[in-house]
Amino acid sequence: MPRFLGIDIGGTNVKAAIVPDDGTVAAFVVRPWSGGPPADVVAAARELADELAPDGPRGIAACGAGCAGLVDGVRGVVYFSPNLPAWRDVELARMLSGALGIPTLIENDANAAAYGEHAAGAARGAANAAVLTLGTGVGGGLILGGKLHRGAHGFAGEVGHATIDYDGVRCVCGGNGCLERLVNAEAIVARATELARGGHTRLADLLRARPLTAKDVGEAADLGDCAAVRTLEEIGRLLGVGLANLVQILDLEVIVIGGGVASAGERLLVPARIEMAARVQGPSWRLPRVTLAELGETAGVVGAALLARDRLRAQA
Amino acid sequence: MPRFLGIDIGGTNVKAAIVPDDGTVAAFVVRPWSGGPPADVVAAARELADELAPDGPRGIAACGAGCAGLVDGVRGVVYFSPNLPAWRDVELARMLSGALGIPTLIENDANAAAYGEHAAGAARGAANAAVLTLGTGVGGGLILGGKLHRGAHGFAGEVGHATIDYDGVRCVCGGNGCLERLVNAEAIVARATELARGGHTRLADLLRARPLTAKDVGEAADLGDCAAVRTLEEIGRLLGVGLANLVQILDLEVIVIGGGVASAGERLLVPARIEMAARVQGPSWRLPRVTLAELGETAGVVGAALLARDRLRAQA
Repeated sequence: MPRFLGIDIGGTNVKAAIVPDDGTVAAFVVRPWSGGPPADVVAAARELADELAPDGPRGIAACGAGCAGLVDGVRGVVYFSPNLPAWRDVELARMLSGALGIPTLIENDANAAAYGEHAAGAARGAANAAVLTLGTGVGGGLILGGKLHRGAHGFAGEVGHATIDYDGVRCVCGGNGCLERLVNAEAIVARATELARGGHTRLADLLRARPLTAKDVGEAADLGDCAAVRTLEEIGRLLGVGLANLVQILDLEVIVIGGGVASAGERLLVPARIEMAARVQGPSWRLPRVTLAELGETAGVVGAALLARDRLRAQA
Repeated sequence: MPRFLGIDIGGTNVKAAIVPDDGTVAAFVVRPWSGGPPADVVAAARELADELAPDGPRGIAACGAGCAGLVDGVRGVVYFSPNLPAWRDVELARMLSGALGIPTLIENDANAAAYGEHAAGAARGAANAAVLTLGTGVGGGLILGGKLHRGAHGFAGEVGHATIDYDGVRCVCGGNGCLERLVNAEAIVARATELARGGHTRLADLLRARPLTAKDVGEAADLGDCAAVRTLEEIGRLLGVGLANLVQILDLEVIVIGGGVASAGERLLVPARIEMAARVQGPSWRLPRVTLAELGETAGVVGAALLARDRLRAQA
């Protein structure tokens, strides 16, 4: 069976995997990485490839690499990456291909993760799907008509920076009331801190010791902490507003929620589904399934590898 | 050259046109119609077809009909239409085809108009485009990857009922802060009335005589009426918020604005472009053109006819 190399370049680490034709993960490594020039990530990719495939890259048919930011997958250029501020107009596909000695494509990381969930995860079989990655940022990738929707320049799927509150709180992107600003990990921590402060709950006790994390909020909610439960209920509702917008605009079959924040699971998804249903007109059978991602931290590497597989096939 | 029949079923009239293969309009008629059972519109379509094509429908290769509401173009069913509350699960494609004696498809009217602008109007040549129709309602149709994007059930493009103010004013659809509620003809009239009331401008004089219309506001703005100018500036900004969301989610090449409200032209589009640009991150070359529709009231019939043309071709 042909094998593919998937790479996922993040702000804090680089992931790599060997992905056979069937979309499973044969081997997976994560290496801490704190940013740096493109040549560094190319060298790291080469080392990871050697580690994963001791026979050398010759055993691998092609490579796909996901990277955050404005990525033009057709031209193979990273225009801009929020995690890598020094990167501008980097011809990453050409550089990786030269270092690895195999055909290499690049893609926006959220698009790659969406393709992974579509090809081998929770959006399998759905021709119209959105995959949202909730964490520090809120990324998105769209499968429309059975294909990854890249848009005019490869920048589609920036669901996190669509606004649901045009006069609302300022977002890092310069907009106001962006979905990301309202439902990301920081928003969860801020609201939970506000609700817990001065109280006598588990979360309040924790808060007296150290700043909260989004994970704390999820864990406290599982133990019935009312500030935590209420936080996830409120944030879930806001998430549902964003999901309703996607449904109105795109008419989807499934929406997949992944990323660190998604570990709060049904406590977040139940209010999100309720809010979505309240805002979408028409028969209830038109509503998409809203479900948790299945591939976890391998979604990006699997998706990038399978995009490389499919491009190779299309060219054959 | 093969000819096609395009029909556009609205709340107040039925339009029909003969559209040759090249997307021009060979003949066009509008008949007032105030709603009624599906059989009425089928009879009207037959009469319009006879009027437009005295040789009988045999001279016409196929028919396409646009209709407001939740329309499943693949199954040929109108599930629900806001203008025609008695219509439920109407097999309109089958009924029209039987009466006309030619293959007939149906489509959501905003989708049909979008396809018309894509095939023969202001979105010609753009693989990724949105066409918004601004009037009493705000309809939308999407061209993605060069094709009409229908979504999972044919309901995609409901841009007017995506929210930009989740806790905002109630919309007829049951949502809050829907784009439609904030930028439709009613919103323009309400804001202009508020700003003009008690003043000494042209619009204020008019307002003392009768309730304003959106057309009044556009005309008064052309004459420099400051309440009218400010209204269109504010509404244009809100429109721009909605456009920014489409760009973030879909990465478009062009956004086409049509419908009655679009007669305000650049007074609406200039602030919309400014607001859109302020809210979309990344290089300025990624921003879509925002331009007025070219086909006017024939967009729906042209688009429906050309959808029928293209389905016939695909089946050949």
